[in-house]
Amino acid sequence: MPSPSPAIRWSQPTDRDAILALIRDTGFFRDDEIEIAREVLDDALRDGPSGDYQSYTALLAGRPVGWVCFGHTPCTIGTYDIYWIAVDRGEQGKGIGRALLQDAESRIAGLGGRISVLETSGRGLYDSTRGFYLKLGYIEEARLREFYAPGDDKVVYTKRLGGGQGRG
Amino acid sequence: MPSPSPAIRWSQPTDRDAILALIRDTGFFRDDEIEIAREVLDDALRDGPSGDYQSYTALLAGRPVGWVCFGHTPCTIGTYDIYWIAVDRGEQGKGIGRALLQDAESRIAGLGGRISVLETSGRGLYDSTRGFYLKLGYIEEARLREFYAPGDDKVVYTKRLGGGQGRG
Repeated sequence: MPSPSPAIRWSQPTDRDAILALIRDTGFFRDDEIEIAREVLDDALRDGPSGDYQSYTALLAGRPVGWVCFGHTPCTIGTYDIYWIAVDRGEQGKGIGRALLQDAESRIAGLGGRISVLETSGRGLYDSTRGFYLKLGYIEEARLREFYAPGDDKVVYTKRLGGGQGRG
Repeated sequence: MPSPSPAIRWSQPTDRDAILALIRDTGFFRDDEIEIAREVLDDALRDGPSGDYQSYTALLAGRPVGWVCFGHTPCTIGTYDIYWIAVDRGEQGKGIGRALLQDAESRIAGLGGRISVLETSGRGLYDSTRGFYLKLGYIEEARLREFYAPGDDKVVYTKRLGGGQGRG
């Protein structure tokens, strides 16, 4: 039986604790990264869609099970960074990450975005993350050796969205 | 006769107008980039050295003739971005940019930085900028096609500072 599709909507203040908990529970993020996620989420909740961060929550049966946060990359025309994407540890493998990412890409294209950018670590812990991006049509466009820390490369994935500036 | 070395010190509120004017006059930055430089400079002036942005002014005979702004790259251990470097259009070719960049690298190493990162455009307008980074020991580590705009690649230069985490 296929998994039910999550509902995806703009993040609400009532999602906050659940989003922060699911980010923490994934085991993919260090404390300093979680702190930055918190700041970004709080900015989005405060500023709304006209702010720098676009924040969407995936829900199953009304419960927050995933989060994506993206925004226009400063000093670019039509490039968007997907800063965060995370799925509740107990709900992974059900297509929630895919739904969140594709929803974000649609919204970015709708804003006139040309390119979606995802950055992640080259460490083994992130093998499945990188495989997920490749499966969703991203290409590895750059690798910066030891960027995050000694032994921890930054890998940059991009995807051409086929939209264009005219749509923004 | 060799050019006199500039004095380099933490940026002061009285430098603000001169820095913004020299950035504008270089012709290298778009209005939206200048606006971001202004925000970054104002953050540095407000927050001081404990803030996110480290901002230094080069002076010749007491007059601001150059500006560099760098900071720790979030979510990294020991990586620093040099966000802005600019020299007064009338004072270029006198070693001010080199002095500013090397001073920034020393400070970054003193803060425990391992890697200094500079990003610039692949457009012809920036040929001299890229040549300057290469001459100062940077390598082109990545190129993201059309990142800034259609036809405008982002080129990422890095330099290993030979310092290390132990010094921070």
